[in-house]
Amino acid sequence: MKLKIKKQLLEEELITYASDHIDLPENGVDCSEGCNPYGFPAKVEEVYKSFDIGRLGPYPHSQALYEAIHNYWKDVIDVEKGNIALADGSINALYIINNIFDTHDTKVLGISPQFTDYYMHAKMTGLEYVPITLRKEDNYKLNVDEFLDESITEDYNYLYIDNPNNPTGQSVSIEDIERIVAKCLKHDIVVIVDEAYGDFMPKSNSAVALFAKYPNLIVVRTLSKGFGLAGLRAGYIIAHKDMIAYMKKMINPYMIGELHRELAAAALSCDDHIEMSMQAFAEMKRQLAEALDGDGRLHMAESLDTCSLCLLYHDEPSIRLKDEFVKRGILVIDGNDFRGLDASSVRLRLPRKEEFGRVLEAVKEINRI
Amino acid sequence: MKLKIKKQLLEEELITYASDHIDLPENGVDCSEGCNPYGFPAKVEEVYKSFDIGRLGPYPHSQALYEAIHNYWKDVIDVEKGNIALADGSINALYIINNIFDTHDTKVLGISPQFTDYYMHAKMTGLEYVPITLRKEDNYKLNVDEFLDESITEDYNYLYIDNPNNPTGQSVSIEDIERIVAKCLKHDIVVIVDEAYGDFMPKSNSAVALFAKYPNLIVVRTLSKGFGLAGLRAGYIIAHKDMIAYMKKMINPYMIGELHRELAAAALSCDDHIEMSMQAFAEMKRQLAEALDGDGRLHMAESLDTCSLCLLYHDEPSIRLKDEFVKRGILVIDGNDFRGLDASSVRLRLPRKEEFGRVLEAVKEINRI
Repeated sequence: MKLKIKKQLLEEELITYASDHIDLPENGVDCSEGCNPYGFPAKVEEVYKSFDIGRLGPYPHSQALYEAIHNYWKDVIDVEKGNIALADGSINALYIINNIFDTHDTKVLGISPQFTDYYMHAKMTGLEYVPITLRKEDNYKLNVDEFLDESITEDYNYLYIDNPNNPTGQSVSIEDIERIVAKCLKHDIVVIVDEAYGDFMPKSNSAVALFAKYPNLIVVRTLSKGFGLAGLRAGYIIAHKDMIAYMKKMINPYMIGELHRELAAAALSCDDHIEMSMQAFAEMKRQLAEALDGDGRLHMAESLDTCSLCLLYHDEPSIRLKDEFVKRGILVIDGNDFRGLDASSVRLRLPRKEEFGRVLEAVKEINRI
Repeated sequence: MKLKIKKQLLEEELITYASDHIDLPENGVDCSEGCNPYGFPAKVEEVYKSFDIGRLGPYPHSQALYEAIHNYWKDVIDVEKGNIALADGSINALYIINNIFDTHDTKVLGISPQFTDYYMHAKMTGLEYVPITLRKEDNYKLNVDEFLDESITEDYNYLYIDNPNNPTGQSVSIEDIERIVAKCLKHDIVVIVDEAYGDFMPKSNSAVALFAKYPNLIVVRTLSKGFGLAGLRAGYIIAHKDMIAYMKKMINPYMIGELHRELAAAALSCDDHIEMSMQAFAEMKRQLAEALDGDGRLHMAESLDTCSLCLLYHDEPSIRLKDEFVKRGILVIDGNDFRGLDASSVRLRLPRKEEFGRVLEAVKEINRI
């Protein structure tokens, strides 16, 4: 049987670390899933308990999440319903965005390594993904000036940047993001700023502040990371009304279920929850940096201290770094699951403070291998 | 600014009746939304109350829905996890399916009228939708023999059929579905059988029974209609493992949130819930048919008695039939929202028995206009 399926689906192999089960070593510490180990704000449970379950019968009508998004951003910028597209998790937001693009000879500029599932979907849907590669000799830090001057050209139609970056956890300043978006506007390049981990940087660093000024900007946010609600599947897109209107021609108004809209809205009203997580992560990263200082062989790539993610890489090219962590009871994501990395690196998502001692011990041991 | 957006999104106007608010007349009866007016099984509430809300923190890991789908179909056919793709509502299932298709010169054969949001998405994504049109003089009944002999040709790559049909509520027998799928297999045509309203026909009439035999068959189901959980957004696709594997290259394993998987699984274990709804609808349709018998001007299109939907059409071509119902406190869907129909027809979704008296009165009055 000869099916008329996209040829990429027939030919390309899927690379992903997303999985619906975790192979955690016995009594192990999970540092693999991108969720917040500190969970979600207590208010979510209150709303859950008082929710009228009869509302699961009709289609979603709740406007609570639109209002909560408006309120969350109101000290930064006015976000109206017409600027918002809801999505069942930010991964679905990225699918929606990729699907509005004309796929004929269309090039997406990326920065490698970055969120694997984004670029895999771009490729599978027929877009040509052409990333620059962050260099180990720069400690994987993005050189924004070089990126602006040499990489952003009219050859591209889209640019995808995750800020903070997944897996390194490094962030680009809002000033640099604006320089990138402004240059892209001149070349008719649409910029997708994926702020899945954006709650772990100051709100003032979000590209959301820029959407009214730049019609070529699309910002993606989620409740899965900072707000600790990965099991909910709630994400959203903010952009110019015209851009959102294109997306809404390919989806219907029922994205995110009735209860989930209420729970996500409740979480968004609790900013302070993330402050606490950020302080904890900053303290852990300080201790990691201290442990890795000196003449050891393990290193931490450029990273924002308050972000839950970091990339660790080892000088021994033949090491299987994930295995070394798993042996010590720490589950991490293999560098092989990211384009531009290999098995001598891992993504480590910081755990709760009380589990961090074991992670630190493992890091100290592996540093000496 | 010149964006590289799909040209359909720039040019085509969206037609849809999906909305996140209902303009119900005061003290009116909603016969518009496709949900089950009898709601969901009581067991759903039990599971809701006993759910450990901490499970909303990590990504969805629940396997309950895969198991429940397996159990639901086990007296018909063996459905393994590899035969299933979960989706946040069956509309998202249809998006996933459309997105696996190569869109270059690709023709989808449809039957008009049918689910508006399906064909709109097909068009917006770049597929050419070419439906046959059901005829008023046939009381909108599909002529399967004619469809088989004349419509299904190698000119098409896909065939979309909703069974039962939305808006008429008519169903095609499993024998006829098999004849269609078998002929399509010979011509390399993939058949999508959308059974969104499939719970309102006997399980033995579902195309799910055929998926192992026909690699060109894709069946879509939802918890939104019969099982009364439209607010949940839970749907699923059943097909050959190869076909599901293509879809899974374009989605990740986190479709449908953790709690929603458990609630949907609980609902699927309560078949008897739908029996009761079906009996109620059959009795209402019997009374409607009786009221419309004779020399009136309102008619009910071909319809399966146990299905919640029916299409009513009026002999007066200039009538705005929806307005006539709304004037009498009954909210319905305008025929204009379906391709192949006009404002002299409406889709009416049957209400609960206790509200049916008002619907019947309205029908009797409009029958005499």
